Amino acid sequence: MGVGDDCARMRVADGMELAVTTDMLLEGRHFLPDAEPRALGHKALAVNLSDLAACGATPRWAVLAIALKSADETWLAGFSAGLFALAERHGVELVGGDTTRGERTIISIAALGEVPAGAALSRAGALPGDDLWVSGELGGAALALVHPGIAEAAARLDRPEPRVALGLRLRGLAHAAIDISDGLAGDLAHILERSRVAARVSYDLIPRAAAFRALGKPELEKDCALSGGDDYELLFAAPAGRRSEVQALSRELALPLSRIGAIEAGEGALSIVDAAGKPIAFRGGFDHFTR
Amino acid sequence: MGVGDDCARMRVADGMELAVTTDMLLEGRHFLPDAEPRALGHKALAVNLSDLAACGATPRWAVLAIALKSADETWLAGFSAGLFALAERHGVELVGGDTTRGERTIISIAALGEVPAGAALSRAGALPGDDLWVSGELGGAALALVHPGIAEAAARLDRPEPRVALGLRLRGLAHAAIDISDGLAGDLAHILERSRVAARVSYDLIPRAAAFRALGKPELEKDCALSGGDDYELLFAAPAGRRSEVQALSRELALPLSRIGAIEAGEGALSIVDAAGKPIAFRGGFDHFTR
Repeated sequence: MGVGDDCARMRVADGMELAVTTDMLLEGRHFLPDAEPRALGHKALAVNLSDLAACGATPRWAVLAIALKSADETWLAGFSAGLFALAERHGVELVGGDTTRGERTIISIAALGEVPAGAALSRAGALPGDDLWVSGELGGAALALVHPGIAEAAARLDRPEPRVALGLRLRGLAHAAIDISDGLAGDLAHILERSRVAARVSYDLIPRAAAFRALGKPELEKDCALSGGDDYELLFAAPAGRRSEVQALSRELALPLSRIGAIEAGEGALSIVDAAGKPIAFRGGFDHFTR
Repeated sequence: MGVGDDCARMRVADGMELAVTTDMLLEGRHFLPDAEPRALGHKALAVNLSDLAACGATPRWAVLAIALKSADETWLAGFSAGLFALAERHGVELVGGDTTRGERTIISIAALGEVPAGAALSRAGALPGDDLWVSGELGGAALALVHPGIAEAAARLDRPEPRVALGLRLRGLAHAAIDISDGLAGDLAHILERSRVAARVSYDLIPRAAAFRALGKPELEKDCALSGGDDYELLFAAPAGRRSEVQALSRELALPLSRIGAIEAGEGALSIVDAAGKPIAFRGGFDHFTR
């Protein structure tokens, strides 16, 4: 409703809360000037849908504010194709936008979803004794920044897959969830802080991108898996008593879900240990003003 | 709800539609590097609230994506003060955001409001015989771009006042409405196109910023009043039979509402005439890729 008006208008279904998130991608910071436009259209929406997934919300609508260097029809067609392909796959309607001219390309999307009242996933709520789970594999996107020639890694960086179906199924199952945009250690720290708990993670249990196996760079692998951003997998805490349900969900969604550790009593401490139980040093999360 | 989570969550009241809009402001294009941060915080939200006003929506929430050159506390405090002062005045809650570092400051806001189902104002719906009205005075913001030293004009450019209360009262009264962000001629053309009507406007009836009177530059005045953007007044069509209601509303809101012309049968033609009924030439609206 209202396409071509000053506002888009929509109806939120009875009994549903509205979930809203926003993310901005900047040329020269989040992507290169020659980034493939179709992948960029995909990613700009994907990072927002990933936030909705982490809340257990069903994606419904998006608005796009974009700055373009020129009215380049080919670029715009590619960008739109990537964005709309992902939008259609998740039933997302692009309901409005703002286009302006800029010296660099800027893409700012706000995505809106619906979640049954009171059922949203949150970062708060993890309890001592909970299992810690992560979807998919980690480190691939960060690896692509160092080795852009590794196709598998580049695909993870350029075309992340928001875990929407998983997020929906974690409602009523997970105690806490977050998407891994800034790295496992940093994003887990957000859960620990909000839930006022500690965690112990076994490094060997963390699923890592297959490309690392042939690479033979264990330090790089560790850094990418623990502190690399942009993977957009879901990290969640669920009761140990419901472990078999999580495993069944993994099979049903054909999505690896790996139990990497446990929530413990404490105040935010994160311990990542090797096979011998010895703590591993790691970098904290991504800091937008120091990197 | 959900502050500190991946999404903000809120409830849209029963029977209400959600209204959404987004606008992005770029340093070097929409504001200068030395723009006063407090005014900038005000304006970034004001332009979005103006869109909600044009739809007759009650502003409720906003999300902010911002790129900053540095974590400059003084700048941020000023920006926040300007944004929150306007937000509080209109009952708007800032529910989420995304902060990143950029080489230039970029501010992208999505604002959300509520409007009773079916009651939103639209650009479509103007009918032949309707009066054409505009709020406030036009041309001041555009004048400030040419004469930045005129304080009254600079205030219009830097601190536009979204006509929220007017928008709410126009529900059920106006047949069509738009906010004037790109200039009277260009924005009126949007109403004419969507409503499939024509319009005739008397130049002498257009309310113009007081600063023009002392300036003695009639060509500049005409260009600013007809084609200058950034005034954020509301332009609306209302039945001629309800003229006295509009006049009473003007008194009640202590906001000038000027009847500048009429909607006529036709397909988009806009005629702006002088006191003798002779057509006046004018520039079209703001084109984001040619200016």
